[in-house]
Amino acid sequence: LWLPSQVMVRTMSSSSGPTSPYTTLSISRPTERVTHVELHRPEKRNAMNKAFWSEMVDCFNEIAADPECRVVVVSGAGKIFTAGIDLMDMASNLLQPEGDDTARVSWNLRKTITKYQETFSVIEKCSKPVVVAVHGACIGGGVDLITACDIRLCTQDAWFQIKEVDIGIAADVGTLHRLPKVIGSRSLVNELALTARKMYADEAKSSGLVSRVFADKETMMAGALEMAGEIAARSPVAVQGTKINLVYARDHSVAEGLDYIATWNMSMLQTQDVMKSAQAAMERKSPKTVAFSKL
Amino acid sequence: LWLPSQVMVRTMSSSSGPTSPYTTLSISRPTERVTHVELHRPEKRNAMNKAFWSEMVDCFNEIAADPECRVVVVSGAGKIFTAGIDLMDMASNLLQPEGDDTARVSWNLRKTITKYQETFSVIEKCSKPVVVAVHGACIGGGVDLITACDIRLCTQDAWFQIKEVDIGIAADVGTLHRLPKVIGSRSLVNELALTARKMYADEAKSSGLVSRVFADKETMMAGALEMAGEIAARSPVAVQGTKINLVYARDHSVAEGLDYIATWNMSMLQTQDVMKSAQAAMERKSPKTVAFSKL
Amino acid sequence: LWLPSQVMVRTMSSSSGPTSPYTTLSISRPTERVTHVELHRPEKRNAMNKAFWSEMVDCFNEIAADPECRVVVVSGAGKIFTAGIDLMDMASNLLQPEGDDTARVSWNLRKTITKYQETFSVIEKCSKPVVVAVHGACIGGGVDLITACDIRLCTQDAWFQIKEVDIGIAADVGTLHRLPKVIGSRSLVNELALTARKMYADEAKSSGLVSRVFADKETMMAGALEMAGEIAARSPVAVQGTKINLVYARDHSVAEGLDYIATWNMSMLQTQDVMKSAQAAMERKSPKTVAFSKL
Amino acid sequence: LWLPSQVMVRTMSSSSGPTSPYTTLSISRPTERVTHVELHRPEKRNAMNKAFWSEMVDCFNEIAADPECRVVVVSGAGKIFTAGIDLMDMASNLLQPEGDDTARVSWNLRKTITKYQETFSVIEKCSKPVVVAVHGACIGGGVDLITACDIRLCTQDAWFQIKEVDIGIAADVGTLHRLPKVIGSRSLVNELALTARKMYADEAKSSGLVSRVFADKETMMAGALEMAGEIAARSPVAVQGTKINLVYARDHSVAEGLDYIATWNMSMLQTQDVMKSAQAAMERKSPKTVAFSKL
Amino acid sequence: LWLPSQVMVRTMSSSSGPTSPYTTLSISRPTERVTHVELHRPEKRNAMNKAFWSEMVDCFNEIAADPECRVVVVSGAGKIFTAGIDLMDMASNLLQPEGDDTARVSWNLRKTITKYQETFSVIEKCSKPVVVAVHGACIGGGVDLITACDIRLCTQDAWFQIKEVDIGIAADVGTLHRLPKVIGSRSLVNELALTARKMYADEAKSSGLVSRVFADKETMMAGALEMAGEIAARSPVAVQGTKINLVYARDHSVAEGLDYIATWNMSMLQTQDVMKSAQAAMERKSPKTVAFSKL
Amino acid sequence: LWLPSQVMVRTMSSSSGPTSPYTTLSISRPTERVTHVELHRPEKRNAMNKAFWSEMVDCFNEIAADPECRVVVVSGAGKIFTAGIDLMDMASNLLQPEGDDTARVSWNLRKTITKYQETFSVIEKCSKPVVVAVHGACIGGGVDLITACDIRLCTQDAWFQIKEVDIGIAADVGTLHRLPKVIGSRSLVNELALTARKMYADEAKSSGLVSRVFADKETMMAGALEMAGEIAARSPVAVQGTKINLVYARDHSVAEGLDYIATWNMSMLQTQDVMKSAQAAMERKSPKTVAFSKL
Repeated sequence: LWLPSQVMVRTMSSSSGPTSPYTTLSISRPTERVTHVELHRPEKRNAMNKAFWSEMVDCFNEIAADPECRVVVVSGAGKIFTAGIDLMDMASNLLQPEGDDTARVSWNLRKTITKYQETFSVIEKCSKPVVVAVHGACIGGGVDLITACDIRLCTQDAWFQIKEVDIGIAADVGTLHRLPKVIGSRSLVNELALTARKMYADEAKSSGLVSRVFADKETMMAGALEMAGEIAARSPVAVQGTKINLVYARDHSVAEGLDYIATWNMSMLQTQDVMKSAQAAMERKSPKTVAFSKL
Repeated sequence: LWLPSQVMVRTMSSSSGPTSPYTTLSISRPTERVTHVELHRPEKRNAMNKAFWSEMVDCFNEIAADPECRVVVVSGAGKIFTAGIDLMDMASNLLQPEGDDTARVSWNLRKTITKYQETFSVIEKCSKPVVVAVHGACIGGGVDLITACDIRLCTQDAWFQIKEVDIGIAADVGTLHRLPKVIGSRSLVNELALTARKMYADEAKSSGLVSRVFADKETMMAGALEMAGEIAARSPVAVQGTKINLVYARDHSVAEGLDYIATWNMSMLQTQDVMKSAQAAMERKSPKTVAFSKL
Repeated sequence: LWLPSQVMVRTMSSSSGPTSPYTTLSISRPTERVTHVELHRPEKRNAMNKAFWSEMVDCFNEIAADPECRVVVVSGAGKIFTAGIDLMDMASNLLQPEGDDTARVSWNLRKTITKYQETFSVIEKCSKPVVVAVHGACIGGGVDLITACDIRLCTQDAWFQIKEVDIGIAADVGTLHRLPKVIGSRSLVNELALTARKMYADEAKSSGLVSRVFADKETMMAGALEMAGEIAARSPVAVQGTKINLVYARDHSVAEGLDYIATWNMSMLQTQDVMKSAQAAMERKSPKTVAFSKL
Repeated sequence: LWLPSQVMVRTMSSSSGPTSPYTTLSISRPTERVTHVELHRPEKRNAMNKAFWSEMVDCFNEIAADPECRVVVVSGAGKIFTAGIDLMDMASNLLQPEGDDTARVSWNLRKTITKYQETFSVIEKCSKPVVVAVHGACIGGGVDLITACDIRLCTQDAWFQIKEVDIGIAADVGTLHRLPKVIGSRSLVNELALTARKMYADEAKSSGLVSRVFADKETMMAGALEMAGEIAARSPVAVQGTKINLVYARDHSVAEGLDYIATWNMSMLQTQDVMKSAQAAMERKSPKTVAFSKL
Repeated sequence: LWLPSQVMVRTMSSSSGPTSPYTTLSISRPTERVTHVELHRPEKRNAMNKAFWSEMVDCFNEIAADPECRVVVVSGAGKIFTAGIDLMDMASNLLQPEGDDTARVSWNLRKTITKYQETFSVIEKCSKPVVVAVHGACIGGGVDLITACDIRLCTQDAWFQIKEVDIGIAADVGTLHRLPKVIGSRSLVNELALTARKMYADEAKSSGLVSRVFADKETMMAGALEMAGEIAARSPVAVQGTKINLVYARDHSVAEGLDYIATWNMSMLQTQDVMKSAQAAMERKSPKTVAFSKL
Repeated sequence: LWLPSQVMVRTMSSSSGPTSPYTTLSISRPTERVTHVELHRPEKRNAMNKAFWSEMVDCFNEIAADPECRVVVVSGAGKIFTAGIDLMDMASNLLQPEGDDTARVSWNLRKTITKYQETFSVIEKCSKPVVVAVHGACIGGGVDLITACDIRLCTQDAWFQIKEVDIGIAADVGTLHRLPKVIGSRSLVNELALTARKMYADEAKSSGLVSRVFADKETMMAGALEMAGEIAARSPVAVQGTKINLVYARDHSVAEGLDYIATWNMSMLQTQDVMKSAQAAMERKSPKTVAFSKL
């Protein structure tokens, strides 16, 4: 059912370096409507340096505006997904902030934190679903990143670590806010965040952090692409409306969420995609046979 | 402990058709205080036609007002729980809405969606606990329905499918809003909603969608009735207050929920049921031996 | 890795009675920065009498203000964790409240409930992480208590029971409000709250109520202390900031949580702990080697 | 500019009794698109009896569904607007509620209060603007009623009184919740609600409770009709969208309100009314010359 | 109508110094059910020193628990209401906070601010209405104080000044949060907070900050007492329920406020006070003739 | 006291055209720390064309980042403040949006509306206070603009008109959301929004929309500059913290606002500005004599 297409996988693994104008990301289009974003500083274990924090924002803003792209797959080049923040490169920003007094240093730090938060919030604000595929280590900022994605996959050798407390910091770019709403055991969230212990693939699966575990990276990438293909084949009006309303629902009461989607769908139900999709369904054809207009 | 009473089950399976004034629902009272609502269009796989959407509202409003009923069990007649929306019957409403221009069509669609949302919200607004028992397929609108129930059970052969994206629609009658607050893996919720893949009983259990899986429908119905009997035997003041406050708590902060229940219980603790229950407990009698006044 | 230090455990189990000024709690300091709070009415199965409800408040207010304490471990003396509310001792308060008419009785009951809610809310308001270790039975008020703690551990023989509905009461001191945000299966929460059935250790683990199960109490206490030690070794600025922001995040939207922590961390990142921790990390030393100032 | 059309006024004052099926309300259509709802128990000073509380709900539900009606004017027949609740008629409901114990009496009272709240909330839920015109006294329930209306007018001899505290009740059908969001002086709101003192037309105007004061009832009714006519002449898509979004905005943050109206207007801007209205505006024609489709 | 009783006033002005155990407050009981709290450091223009900030909390907690007191009047002894914070006395707390690094200093400052906020929040949490009577200057902390009161009165020579910005501080104990919800002109709020200009009695009245202006202090105190007497004469169940629900309504949507008061009044309507009050009303007797039980 | 400095005014009125890179705005610096933004299409009555909507965003983002600027004054060049949206220039965007079906047209319209909302939201997000000075007409989009400013001034000949309903639109870029929180009469807000009638300076003042009315534009500009000067002379840490917290407080409960400012001020109170300001205050020097560091 979910067999990987060999062609796709070959395309995906062909990435040989960052894609201009980026220095930390490699962007490719393995299939017609899927964009692949690869963290690409393998020699640095994909550590998040200054460039990364702003390139992610540019990259996802571009993806959000690209009508050809319907789904995004995120993964890491090299041996691990990411080692998290690149302390060497970032130290000056975080450890020696400017300002004439404590208030002004604080003022500048707040601007910096808010800017860094945006690096992962753009993933959530982008209305196209984002599938993230993790292999090897996913540390610190990596956990912030993946909790902002929509679907999480990993390999059997993957492990996850909320590292911030180990360097004296309460994690401030998303993990503490999204993880408890992503998995169902608050005791586990607290344990991970307070002890910085590693969580391995099995616990990631049983706790619901990832919804699938694959034997190795190649299988996972094929599975990620296959899943992306399934999503990309469906009406973008339905798919992106679903993501937007799922995010809205998380932050509101059920009654407010229902009101919002009624107001949303009063126009979106008027799409031709409903007729096209319904017809294909009745004729027992795959949605992949339907040509949907761009969104 | 949870052995089914054979009498009950026979009563439950005796349903031979919809109960007047309903054409899609069969209502019965298998035991004194339990109401059984059966989706009953087996020849149409319990598909949800126009009549269904309003009969559910009438049915649950009636149940809410019926002092004899303390718990509700919902299940489906025939081979599966429900095939979801009856596209043939509903098409005119959804696909050819009236209105002189886009705004007026939208206005009317919003009214329709809001009305259909009420079909499942009545389950939640009804202060009596609702146990739903799913066998075979539970598709599309069926998932919207069961997420509005309080306790979910299923058979080993059950499967669940969020189907809306396959017909070009962002699910707008509850699934996107309740499911993420019902199960603990957001990655799984997103995967199901965006790919329309089926989820089988095992994953439904491990993800927490259902709290029990039974070997077959007969065992499940017996188990559902037994559970309903346990709940029905307890103080209705306590049981219904519990449901109301659990729903309230979901949509508010912990502090607000605590404030609300303090205001709620300042009168409800003055019930005679506390004394009656406490006495039975001290005498190690079952709550079933206690006669509580109607509520 | 998580091997218990024998010394600690011996220290912990040496408790022979309540610690003045408390009559229901035994307070000790098994290691330098860890406070152990033991429910200590073993002859009464640690039932929660009048004294308990106010002693908990005093105890946690004291802990909150004690700069020597960085982590708290809570457990129960004797055969079980707790039998819950001590109905005999509390009956007069709850069953015969004062007041000249229904409104005035209600007014007084509301004050009482609000006061009792504080008994467990103090655990949450205390910025130091609280690890709770449950053995044997955890009934009624015990469930309210543990859901207000940060990390939950239990022994293989532990069981949990939301008992309130059995005595005619909708649980009003926290279970209904915190449990659904603590575990990921709403169906299970509802089932437990409405039927008062017992949940055993395995289900507690698979549902996410506890994040670890231990063979017996001695192993669990050693594990709890070890975990507390891990947390206590880290920067208190980071640890307590993490707890405060995790609690804040639960009750707010992601956007609000991110705004709050940016405002929080604009000063907290200026701690020397970041530099100290980062240096230790680069030198591959344990955080336990770092001396952090008191908070 | 705001001169009353004599014909209209004559029409309005011709009401000689309640309109079937109502016994407390007289419904008329003074002009093509304006519905006039008159409280009509003049011999009882328009006191709100049992019938009134449910007739209002039926009446406004009907108005909400009536495509011919675009604006509503509410006023009172006889010497005053309303004396508020009809204590004689209502006493049995409020003072002798049924129920076997305090909890059950409370349960029933809550149902009653919730039902009575709906009597005024229907005014707010009806998407057509409601102009209320007050002469003489507006007491107790009258203040609840008018705060749920959109525009408030009064005569020079009008006075307002929050009466509930005088009969031992905290006002529970809307005044305490809407008045502080209707006028801009919280000190005044508190004073009125806590002392039950009368507020006369001048203070009602300066505090913002009413936006216009008229010399006498005849002038006011003419002014109300003229204003209703102005509103009725404009695009119903624009007018009703404005009301819905103003009510939404009151109960949400600015950011949420902006999000909601963007989602609302993405379809509503596609109305032909924009083109028709814009063209009339450019040709300097009154909106009254434009024929808008029904909504 | 609102004529002051000479006896009361004489009683009120007899205060000759702080009342033990307070050093900054003089507490008296001018009439049976009214408590008068006088800021009493006239030689220091009632500046708020360290003692004041904690004495207010003790004082209002005591008042909240005192069944004899039904209404509170707050005023200032000597030439002005208050000069605001006593910078000399407070400087050490605010300007030289303790802590080993910026994070720890911040941690301690936050505790101090939170504690000082409580000084005025106790006024709001006290369910008894608080009438504040301002003469002469009301500066800085004085504005924070009066915005937490329920009803504001002033003399013709009174003036108000939000002073914080003049000493380099964003006002953090209530003014910025309550003032915009107390008066109806946001432009004025911003102007006052950002320029620190004085506002005189006339503008205080027209903007709604105060609901009455009196010629001089003696008249005002008489008026305040008279108003307090009016409130104190009514059912405490109604009066205190009104205050609690008005505060709740401010911070919630209308729908939530209505739900809350329905839950509140389901018990409170069962008070004997309704019958007593209704009977007095029908017999055209003053509420002052009714004896209500203590609350 | 508030006498205009002639030099400033002359500087301000010398603007002779838009300032590069803007084509619709003229930016100047009348005094050291005050930025003057002038709507500058006088020949088109400052109508808001396509360029304007994006130039405002660029302009205010630049101002937000400019450490030299501490306060902003906004006014209009020529005969009136602004005629609102430039229908001719905008028609294509609003009336002929692109998209293959209704859903896609809606999708694009929503993006456009959201973008236009940002045009005024940037004013609110900019932490520097914005004083707006209105002369002559302020129509449609002009009202959206001024409600997002902090302080509103106008001339005696100014008038305001919510025009959207006249062209078939529910105002969607801020008026409906901010105006009710800006003035204190909801009846007036509704009347203005639903009838599109003009409101003149006197009513603008009495309703609280503006906090000052000036005889003519020259006097107003002098007054605006004087007020801006007062604000600019104070600590930017205090001033900008005040704006940020006032905006936060509007959209949150009082308790949440207090929590937020405590977290804000725990660092901001550590500014040198407090000491500098306090010292100046004690020496009775004007804040203008103090040199504050840039923020």
